[in-house]
This record gives sequence, C-alpha cells and structure tokens, in this order.
Amino acid sequence: MAGRNRQIVLARRPVGTPVVEDFALRDAPMPSPGAGQVLLRHLYLSLDPAIRGWMSEARSYLPPIAIGAPVRSGTLSEVVESNLPAWPTGTLVQALAAWEEHSVVGKDALLGRIEPSPDIPLATMLSVLGGNGLTAYFGLFDVGQPKPGETVLVSAAAGGVGSVVGQLARRHGCRAVGLTSTPDKCAFLTDELGYDAAIPYKAYEPGAPLSRAIKDACPAGVDVFFDSVGGPILDAALSRLNVGARVALCGAISQINATEPPPGPRNYLQLLAKRARMQGFITLDFAARYDEARRHLREAILDGSLRYRDDIVEGLENAPAHLLRLFSGDHVGKLMVHLADPSTPAKHRTSTEQG
Amino acid sequence: MAGRNRQIVLARRPVGTPVVEDFALRDAPMPSPGAGQVLLRHLYLSLDPAIRGWMSEARSYLPPIAIGAPVRSGTLSEVVESNLPAWPTGTLVQALAAWEEHSVVGKDALLGRIEPSPDIPLATMLSVLGGNGLTAYFGLFDVGQPKPGETVLVSAAAGGVGSVVGQLARRHGCRAVGLTSTPDKCAFLTDELGYDAAIPYKAYEPGAPLSRAIKDACPAGVDVFFDSVGGPILDAALSRLNVGARVALCGAISQINATEPPPGPRNYLQLLAKRARMQGFITLDFAARYDEARRHLREAILDGSLRYRDDIVEGLENAPAHLLRLFSGDHVGKLMVHLADPSTPAKHRTSTEQG
Repeated sequence: MAGRNRQIVLARRPVGTPVVEDFALRDAPMPSPGAGQVLLRHLYLSLDPAIRGWMSEARSYLPPIAIGAPVRSGTLSEVVESNLPAWPTGTLVQALAAWEEHSVVGKDALLGRIEPSPDIPLATMLSVLGGNGLTAYFGLFDVGQPKPGETVLVSAAAGGVGSVVGQLARRHGCRAVGLTSTPDKCAFLTDELGYDAAIPYKAYEPGAPLSRAIKDACPAGVDVFFDSVGGPILDAALSRLNVGARVALCGAISQINATEPPPGPRNYLQLLAKRARMQGFITLDFAARYDEARRHLREAILDGSLRYRDDIVEGLENAPAHLLRLFSGDHVGKLMVHLADPSTPAKHRTSTEQG
Repeated sequence: MAGRNRQIVLARRPVGTPVVEDFALRDAPMPSPGAGQVLLRHLYLSLDPAIRGWMSEARSYLPPIAIGAPVRSGTLSEVVESNLPAWPTGTLVQALAAWEEHSVVGKDALLGRIEPSPDIPLATMLSVLGGNGLTAYFGLFDVGQPKPGETVLVSAAAGGVGSVVGQLARRHGCRAVGLTSTPDKCAFLTDELGYDAAIPYKAYEPGAPLSRAIKDACPAGVDVFFDSVGGPILDAALSRLNVGARVALCGAISQINATEPPPGPRNYLQLLAKRARMQGFITLDFAARYDEARRHLREAILDGSLRYRDDIVEGLENAPAHLLRLFSGDHVGKLMVHLADPSTPAKHRTSTEQG
C-alpha cells in the first residue's frame, strides 16, 4: 500500500502537566505488514490517563514511549491488509496501537474483535464497551467485590471509567456515591447517571472537612472505594472505610503530572484498623474475560441502566489538545478522536446519542 | 477474696515515645467477680506494640486505655474464682486483661485455654504459642498466602512476631529474608533462626540504597511482605514487589510514637503497576481458628524448625521499663513480665531454653 501515514509523535518528555508543544505532527511512510502482522486503519483513538504514564521515562507495566515515536494509544481500527488468517481484511478490532492513521501490529496488540451493533454507536465500542467499561467492570467486580446493599464510593466519578463504575454498582444493588470536581458535574452524576449522591470535592478542604463530606454522603461508611485519583481524596476515603472494605486502585490522576514524588496516603494504617485491603489492577490482565464483561455492559446499556457521554473530536491533529482536557477536569465522559469511518458497510449507528 | 491488688496504671497519655513517668504503680482493692465473670491471677504479661496504640487517645479496634486505668495487656493467667462453668477454678487461660496482679473479666476477654505441655515452657504459651505466633500464622498464611518457592520479606524480623514469620515461611518452602536494625540481629536471624538472608536496614539510606539492598537479598523480587514497621522500610519494600505480590500489614512500629501524622507510603502506586495488594489484619478476628494455628506452631517447635527467644523480666513494677525496650530496638524475641507461677501442679517446663 503506497502513500503517507500521518502521525503524532512524542517530541519531548513532558515536565509536569503536558502541553501541546510536547507533541509533533509528522508524515511517515506508509508501513507494510510482515509475517504475522496486520495493517490497521484507525477509525477512533482512545484518550486515557494511562497515556500520560507512558510519556514518562519510568517503566511501568509497558515501556515508555520513545522520543520521536508515535504516541501509544488504544484504538478502534479496521484491518486493511492481513498476514494473520484469524484477523482478515475488513475486521473491526480494538487494538493497542498509536496516534497515527495506520499502524502495523502483531496479534498481541489486537485486543478483540468489534461486532458492530445497530443499537449502539461504533465509538461506544471504544468507550463503554471498550477500555473504560472493561476497567470499570473488572475493577469493581473482581477487585472491589461489592455485595448488594453495600456503599461504593467512586473518585473521578464523571470520567470515562468512574461514570460506568457507579452505574454498574447501582445496577448490582449498591449505594453509589461519586466524588467529582464541581457542582455541575455532581448534577450530571445524580440527575443523568443516577448516582445516589455526589460530592464536589473542590468545595472542601482536604483532611477532616472532606472526610466529613464523605461521611455525610456515605452514612453507612464505605465498603468499596474505586480510586482513579489518589492524593488527599484517597486519604479522605481511607478515613471512612468500613471493616473489611476494599480499595480498588485504578490510577492516580492527581499525581500523574507531579514533578516530584507526591506524598503517599497518610491514612494507610486505616487498612489495618479496618482489616481492609487496597489492590491495584491492570485491565489487560483480564483479556481472557473481555467477552463476559462486554456482554454485561451491553445488557446494561440496552436495559437503560448504563448511560454515558462520548466526547469526540475530529482529526488526528487535535489529539494532543483533546488529551490535555483529561488533566484540566474540563470534560465529562470519554475522550476520543475520530479519524475515519469503516470502509465496510456500517450496520452500526453513527450518532453518539443514546436511545 | 480479700487483700490488695497491685496495678500499673496509665498516669498520662504519652507524647511521642513513652517514658516510665507515663505509668504509675497503684494499690487497688482486690476485685470480686460478678455473674458471668471470673477472677484471674496473672502469671505472665505480654508486652506488645499494640499497647502503645491503646495508650493514645485515638480509637482503634479497641477503645483507648483511660487515664488512671490499668494498662491493657495480653496475659497468661489462672482462674482463681469462677462464675463461668466453662472456665473453672484452676484453668490456665490466655486473656486480654491488664497490668495488675488480678483482674475480673467476662468470657469475651478469655481468648483460650492453655494446656501446659511437658515439652514447652509455660511462658512460650504466651509468646510463640500465644499472640505473637498466632499473629505470624494468620498474617503470613491467610493474608500473605505464600506459595512454596516464593520470597517472603519480613520487617522487624528479630521481634516477637517477625522471628516466627520467617521461620514459618521457610518451613513452608519459601525464601525468608529479614529486615532488622543491626548486624548483630542479622546474625541472629540467619545463624540462629535460619533466615536465608538478613538486611541491617540502619546501614542504608532510605530510598534507593535501601531498595537496592532489598534487591540484592531478594534477587527474585518480593512476593510477600510482612510489615510491622511502616515508613521508609515499607516504601523500599513496595519498590521491589513482584507482580501479584501481597503486603500483610501487621503494624507500624516506626510510626507508633509519632507526634504528628507521618507521611504515607509514597510508593503505594507500585500496588497498581504490580497488581499487588496491601491488606491489614487483626489477630483477634481469627479467634475461631486459634487451635489450628497452635497445632501448626507446636509441630514447628517440636520438629525443630521454629526456634525463639523469650525475654522475660521479673515483677509487675518492671513492666513499663521492659515495654520501652520495644521502641528502642534493644531486644530480640518476645518481651514478657513474670508475676507468679500456677498454683496447680506444673506439668510444664519452667525453663525457657529450647530442647
């Protein structure tokens, strides 16, 4: 396949919060798949906090993005050339690829087939039915292990993952309480997503005031805390754990741009007093059970108990600026970039409105 | 029963590390058991870090010791007057009572019957076969869940609990590595207790140097960390966790005398990168399974794989000074106070030497 391949590469390692100058648009030659590889044409890019981690030098569960390399990203893509019989041309896939128009990948980067559905917009396959929903599902049910009647507290509750966690918890028979930045987002949580209560954490001083706000919203204490934020919010939540509580560590967006190691959770000894546990998880570890999770999430969408917003911008060149909205708190729901539509006849809805 | 009852009471709340002036010796009237109660004569007092927690104002899993009240303590005691048919006069018991010659308690404070054994010194029933051994057993096996071949790292490894943890881990087929203050204690761990390796943590700067020392002693990484210390030692251990590791939180002796909240573990996000968990536990929660644990510990003593030292001082009045040795690091093994011998004919050995 001839032609050029536009990419967004990492121009330099960000110091603190990334800025658009940390990225550069580049023309690269169109890659060609070797044995055991496919060529993907990307339709949507998924913008997630994990990307910020990969931009740093520190090795995490995946190596850092190299300077000059395209930014690693979840994608929803179409196979346009294939040397993998199990992934023929025309297949729609969820992949771990990069911010570019096309990528060559092997089968390890192909995270699952996307089956378009007339009921559900294609982009949603990358949000609620993609990484965000999968993260919410495994973090809540496998790590958090909520029992009906328990209280589930969620940080970053208006974000792509958190907005799903609370709704799955409610559908499971739990009380769902969300922490988010502003009263506007609180209204989104309670009025649109059905959270039982929401706390605008910026209205409270860290420490005792925030801890009291959590107590007021969780009068029976906290049985499961699903944390994507860390910092003072984690400390306040630890102070309200019930005996036997579970803390599911999904991330620490409050710390992700820190230029020096931020303090750890002072209240960690609450884990001892409350015989509680704090456990980290990586969604990729559950790859063998993605179908189970997608069935659960699809049912929840179709029965009306899982509502969501997809926040989609047009064009590869807008990916950096859209990513930065993750860190400003200036968004609700899942951030994605739309690059192209499938070349195969679409059975799916193209609108992102919910039915 | 007439007479006086000598007590050590809490004279004032300690600020930072306790001093002997925080305690006072007092003569109280001999108490008399009411319905559903027994009168205990204490033979041995158990000196444990938990006592320091109870001396503070903060409510933990038990309420604080009141100013002027006798210091709460584990004891090995004889029932000398009983209104509880299941606990007749002459029974030897492990109890949660206080630093006094006699206590009146109800059945909730009676933690188990002590069956003297000709093979094992009576005091050991309160150390390796008492709270220390039980804490080591449940923390290691139920919270840490080690598999044979894994590496188990233990902090405060020369202490009453830690010295048991490492030996149980080795007997289970694990590599046991201990953290302790000085090279002398390291020699005790490796030469006397059979630890595979020991790290004199005071020889290393916190942070990277201590983390490297752990790496050298745990070349295959850390699968289970049994922590009774907290602070920089916990942080260094977190930096060496393997994927799927378990941190059993037993306590935080490094923080127990802090006058303001010490920083939390900066490296807690290693729990995320390594899909690891950190879990607190309280030995009392496992009371229904104490017999199982005592059988395991007794077998380990008798087959020679569990060695220990009991560090016993004579006389109630010496309890405060002996307790303070917990915080100076100036001890090896379990600290106890001997008050009296059983009035029933002794079947047990009176020496604390091992066979």
